[in-house]
Amino acid sequence: MAKINPNFKKLPQNYLFSEIKKKKQEYLKKHPKAEIYDLSIGDTTQPIVPSVIEGLKRGVEKLAKRKTYTGYGQTEGNIKLRKAISKFYQKRGVKISPSEIFISDGAKTDCANISSLFSPKSKIAICDPVYPVYRDANLFWGKKIIYLPATKENSFLPKVPKQKVDLIFLCSPNNPTGAVMTKSHLRDFIKYAIENKAIIIFDAAYSEFIQDKNLPKSIYQIEGAKKCAIEIQSFSKSAGFTGVRLGWTIVPNELETEDVFEKGKINSLWQKRQSIMFNGASNISQEGGLAVLSSKGQRETKKQIKYYLENAKIIKDGLRSLKLEVFGGENSPYLWVKCPKNLTSWQFFKELLEKANVICVPGEGFGKYGKNYVRFSAFALREKIKKAIRNIRENL
Amino acid sequence: MAKINPNFKKLPQNYLFSEIKKKKQEYLKKHPKAEIYDLSIGDTTQPIVPSVIEGLKRGVEKLAKRKTYTGYGQTEGNIKLRKAISKFYQKRGVKISPSEIFISDGAKTDCANISSLFSPKSKIAICDPVYPVYRDANLFWGKKIIYLPATKENSFLPKVPKQKVDLIFLCSPNNPTGAVMTKSHLRDFIKYAIENKAIIIFDAAYSEFIQDKNLPKSIYQIEGAKKCAIEIQSFSKSAGFTGVRLGWTIVPNELETEDVFEKGKINSLWQKRQSIMFNGASNISQEGGLAVLSSKGQRETKKQIKYYLENAKIIKDGLRSLKLEVFGGENSPYLWVKCPKNLTSWQFFKELLEKANVICVPGEGFGKYGKNYVRFSAFALREKIKKAIRNIRENL
Repeated sequence: MAKINPNFKKLPQNYLFSEIKKKKQEYLKKHPKAEIYDLSIGDTTQPIVPSVIEGLKRGVEKLAKRKTYTGYGQTEGNIKLRKAISKFYQKRGVKISPSEIFISDGAKTDCANISSLFSPKSKIAICDPVYPVYRDANLFWGKKIIYLPATKENSFLPKVPKQKVDLIFLCSPNNPTGAVMTKSHLRDFIKYAIENKAIIIFDAAYSEFIQDKNLPKSIYQIEGAKKCAIEIQSFSKSAGFTGVRLGWTIVPNELETEDVFEKGKINSLWQKRQSIMFNGASNISQEGGLAVLSSKGQRETKKQIKYYLENAKIIKDGLRSLKLEVFGGENSPYLWVKCPKNLTSWQFFKELLEKANVICVPGEGFGKYGKNYVRFSAFALREKIKKAIRNIRENL
Repeated sequence: MAKINPNFKKLPQNYLFSEIKKKKQEYLKKHPKAEIYDLSIGDTTQPIVPSVIEGLKRGVEKLAKRKTYTGYGQTEGNIKLRKAISKFYQKRGVKISPSEIFISDGAKTDCANISSLFSPKSKIAICDPVYPVYRDANLFWGKKIIYLPATKENSFLPKVPKQKVDLIFLCSPNNPTGAVMTKSHLRDFIKYAIENKAIIIFDAAYSEFIQDKNLPKSIYQIEGAKKCAIEIQSFSKSAGFTGVRLGWTIVPNELETEDVFEKGKINSLWQKRQSIMFNGASNISQEGGLAVLSSKGQRETKKQIKYYLENAKIIKDGLRSLKLEVFGGENSPYLWVKCPKNLTSWQFFKELLEKANVICVPGEGFGKYGKNYVRFSAFALREKIKKAIRNIRENL
């Protein structure tokens, strides 16, 4: 007598982006000739840089010959790629051993699955607003969630929980607010985690957008983090791999929980979990990842990040010229915009769509503290961004 | 106060293939000059066929230009690929709509995750011996498991459970026994499932190895299956995609559980689960999948499957000439060999390693009913297989 997982009932009824798509289609039905400027979805638009295309092709060509053909790789990923990631951390002053690195098919899967490493009874702290996957995945696992508000008053950098929690999800640079946690904020969370034997899940998928040298790109740049933090990273936004699928997760050997403090033990449990539930990332994508981390790949992808950040500046300047309050966008591809005239996020969304044909994301989709904000994404083509901003300036 | 998931304690202490690797290394330490013939791991060894290499390259090239660049695709996969899979089923007389198909990064992930669609209290039936992922993943989720023995007496085709269960995992052609379920056996399971409102998870990852036209390649070739069965499929073994990562899962619109019988509802719940926990398979791998399903791709990959099946015949004939009892290998890349002289599977493994330098898989690793069998895999180079068999014939 099979029954459906009852946790499905706890999930929000509509997926944010399907809802946006529906509204867009309804508008287009009424105005079939309208040209819509979509600044909503956080998806890369620039082609992959030449050196990385070469790497991906190399990956394919290896599979064409018996001598270089490879089938299953190690679950935790190609050792060359893990060594390159280890070097990548070394350059920012962080020592991560290749054995602490687990290659994945992207940050989302790991963000959604990482809780399974811990007791099903774990209490989870999540920022509000934030990337909805942390919330939805944990609701799907039946976990108890408490929310840490990120508001204008705290510069969108939530304070440590007042109560005891077991896991804390942090996203820095934050999606959707674009806020970046400072070293001092991270120190507070690490202190809390060590005192309460909590684990921090640090999602650093947007770290390559950080330009300010004082802001930490990895949580391991802060002392004590290896005892209490797992870091999740991605090639998606930094190298245009949203469709290629590649990321990694670091489970440090020093990590400790209330019940496990043997060195390397939690790392080996994640290895065990992955060897049961996962069969490694695509060997082609991994060859691409190696090319991203080469010196040429780093030069070329950094240029692409600059392009998106220039987009962000155009959006920021344009909206500010209308006296709108705009946050983020300097060390992040996202801009967090306060709705004018006390509008709710869906009302402002509607106004932007109808008056300027521009689509953004209503902040409510990221949590209740987003209800008076909208998110703009800089992941769009320059000409579209310019036209969108002109439309907003002329018609709003 | 984070604690580790207590279900880790339920998992077997050692992963089968790590154990085999250890024994191999111990042997090589004592006999550094020995040439070892590894017929253990079920991993492809032949390079990917030319038409599919072209497809994969096309996938990479699309990412190099702004006009053809794609980022996130639909979670459920490229619609062209889903249409091609729908046609692939049509050719075997089965009607599957593209909306019932979910592209994945390989069968293993879906085999491990599919239980999450159902109540955490579900009771799971699993064949013994079988691919360990069904057991380990369900133990990891804290599910209750009952085992269905597959023995020489029932031709390695288990009978339906005597008690009521909620989910039944079937693997046909079976890994490790090589047994293929007949239409009549499948009819029994479908009848049981409909009567008990149970769901069958049908793993058809090896179906392309079936040569006998009377044996079903898909469970949907049997009437009633769409009401009670989910089918999981893979490009891994049929197209050498073990490293490329690509598969699919079918959740029919007609599927019903005890509590959900609205048409398309369970399909939409899996869609929801995937949109939270997964971000789609690599767009490059999906282009490769399209090439596999083209007529040229089908011709070329079928030839490769024949190569592996010829390998299987060489192993089967060789071992039978030593009066060993050998099963499977005709519609499957695996051979299931009874240990002689009442040896246990690890004892026979040891004898094969020490006397003939051949590595197989001790059947015990697949369940307790495997304790007097070993598995041979035909996924090896022809010359190695010939040498391995000669060594066994001369030295055992």
